[in-house]
Amino acid sequence: MHEQQRISHNSQHIAIIGTGLIGASFAAALRANGYCGYISGCARQQETVQRAKELGYIDIGSTQAAEAVKGADLVLLAVPMLAIRATLEEIAPHLAPGCVVTDAGSVKGQVLQDAQDVLGDLVNVVPGHPLAGKEHSGVDAADETLYSGQLVILTPHKTTATAAIAEVTALWQLCGARVEVLEAAHHDRVLAATSHLPHVLAFSIVDMLSQHQARDEVFRFSAGGFRDFTRIASGDPVMWRDICLSNREPVGEILTDLLEHLQHVQQLIEAGDAQALESIFSNAKTTRDSLIVKYQRDLTAQQAARRKADSVDDQVKK
Amino acid sequence: MHEQQRISHNSQHIAIIGTGLIGASFAAALRANGYCGYISGCARQQETVQRAKELGYIDIGSTQAAEAVKGADLVLLAVPMLAIRATLEEIAPHLAPGCVVTDAGSVKGQVLQDAQDVLGDLVNVVPGHPLAGKEHSGVDAADETLYSGQLVILTPHKTTATAAIAEVTALWQLCGARVEVLEAAHHDRVLAATSHLPHVLAFSIVDMLSQHQARDEVFRFSAGGFRDFTRIASGDPVMWRDICLSNREPVGEILTDLLEHLQHVQQLIEAGDAQALESIFSNAKTTRDSLIVKYQRDLTAQQAARRKADSVDDQVKK
Repeated sequence: MHEQQRISHNSQHIAIIGTGLIGASFAAALRANGYCGYISGCARQQETVQRAKELGYIDIGSTQAAEAVKGADLVLLAVPMLAIRATLEEIAPHLAPGCVVTDAGSVKGQVLQDAQDVLGDLVNVVPGHPLAGKEHSGVDAADETLYSGQLVILTPHKTTATAAIAEVTALWQLCGARVEVLEAAHHDRVLAATSHLPHVLAFSIVDMLSQHQARDEVFRFSAGGFRDFTRIASGDPVMWRDICLSNREPVGEILTDLLEHLQHVQQLIEAGDAQALESIFSNAKTTRDSLIVKYQRDLTAQQAARRKADSVDDQVKK
Repeated sequence: MHEQQRISHNSQHIAIIGTGLIGASFAAALRANGYCGYISGCARQQETVQRAKELGYIDIGSTQAAEAVKGADLVLLAVPMLAIRATLEEIAPHLAPGCVVTDAGSVKGQVLQDAQDVLGDLVNVVPGHPLAGKEHSGVDAADETLYSGQLVILTPHKTTATAAIAEVTALWQLCGARVEVLEAAHHDRVLAATSHLPHVLAFSIVDMLSQHQARDEVFRFSAGGFRDFTRIASGDPVMWRDICLSNREPVGEILTDLLEHLQHVQQLIEAGDAQALESIFSNAKTTRDSLIVKYQRDLTAQQAARRKADSVDDQVKK
């Protein structure tokens, strides 16, 4: 192994399985923020491996996950949700003793289950979910600032070692992310409401309208509001299919709640109940406006923190 | 009356009832594009009238609609949907013979019905719906480019005079808008799908999540996708209540369709039908992506048309 600068983490060799947007941005952010350890990478296509090397994200690469994880202190699985189990099966016999395993999937209960089944215990397993992304995918879309100021939720098991959680936390913080720890089932319920349900709705409404008898006019007469509302329907269909199927129960439950709520609203419209309807719409507007105000405030606080950090950094350099 | 430059329209005196964003932007756009006629305006508040005068949008103003329409060749009702009928009743005895009446409401069948009931015939009635708006409302948000390149849908009755339709068309075109003529009931069905339904959904989902047991986390963990998806829930609750109630049947029907579609998707998730789910999500993505490509193309074409118009204009000036 080679020299490295010690920060607050211990990993001297990190393996990234899946050097797409999420995995390569993790490497890019680590490098940009002073990580001097070794990074090995794996992608299905040799050209992706090559590109990740050219861009300086990984030191060595392979199309074989088993090869990439050899000797690693920590492995990040940045592969599609439904590929996690097979990847775990592939790497399990090759993991160094004590190697920490984390991931970046959108559903966490499933990952804990897969890891328990394949690895036998969860001592070194720290499932993670970075709430970050962008429209484009792939290694060329990787961005060292992707996680800057963004939330990463970790969902370790109660049997997971504290040191493993601390290590994954330190690396994400090095990437500029804010880290929160949640119970996996709770994460999956909350994300079903705030992310999976909106995606199911956006996909469903666009699919339905594509079969509307006045389809052409429906889309021709759609304005900016409709474009924003349906932006998430431009997401990756396979990824979102897998998320829905991996988080079947919570998504089903929140969808049931919404169907009931919509039926209620429909009855109010039918009955012409102006007061009740206004009350629902007003509450939504108030909630949404305050959410945005809060978000802007958080963003400003983050920017201030970054400016302060930069300024300290400048002073250190001087 | 005073001098005016003849373009392709005939109105020498336009009355705008409601000098908020929509009404005042109509005046601003007319002025900016060479309309030299007389514009009278009406607002409920004297200070709004005063402000519209100060900003040069209207020549004379009143808080009384009956006063503002006197002698007008054309009246634009830019008042809330459910205020249209009362406004028609107020102005009816004061309209000059042959005065064209148009409006800017989001639901058109209701306006035709109101006009028929109040005015007795629809010869000079040309309901209109500009598909334009912005986050802020009020006279100070008025913008001479609000309608530039945007669609305005006119929904005259079969008994409406061709000259009246031509006049309203000419004025919107002068504002830079593209005009299409549709049957009112068809307009209301299409807009129920593309505008009213998304608003009902966005309001409903935010209202529901505001009552979620993990409410704080739901909103704290919401990312950019959720913010875009719910942007329209920051719309005016009273305006959207009125739109839903004025377009009760088409909104109810499309909501029924969506509920059925969502129940179907829910069953697919529950059954783990990956193939059917992917097919729906993929179709949505393809549809949405092509919609955006088309929109960008339209926008580019409009920009090119404007550049050409500017260049012709420059040559004329030389």
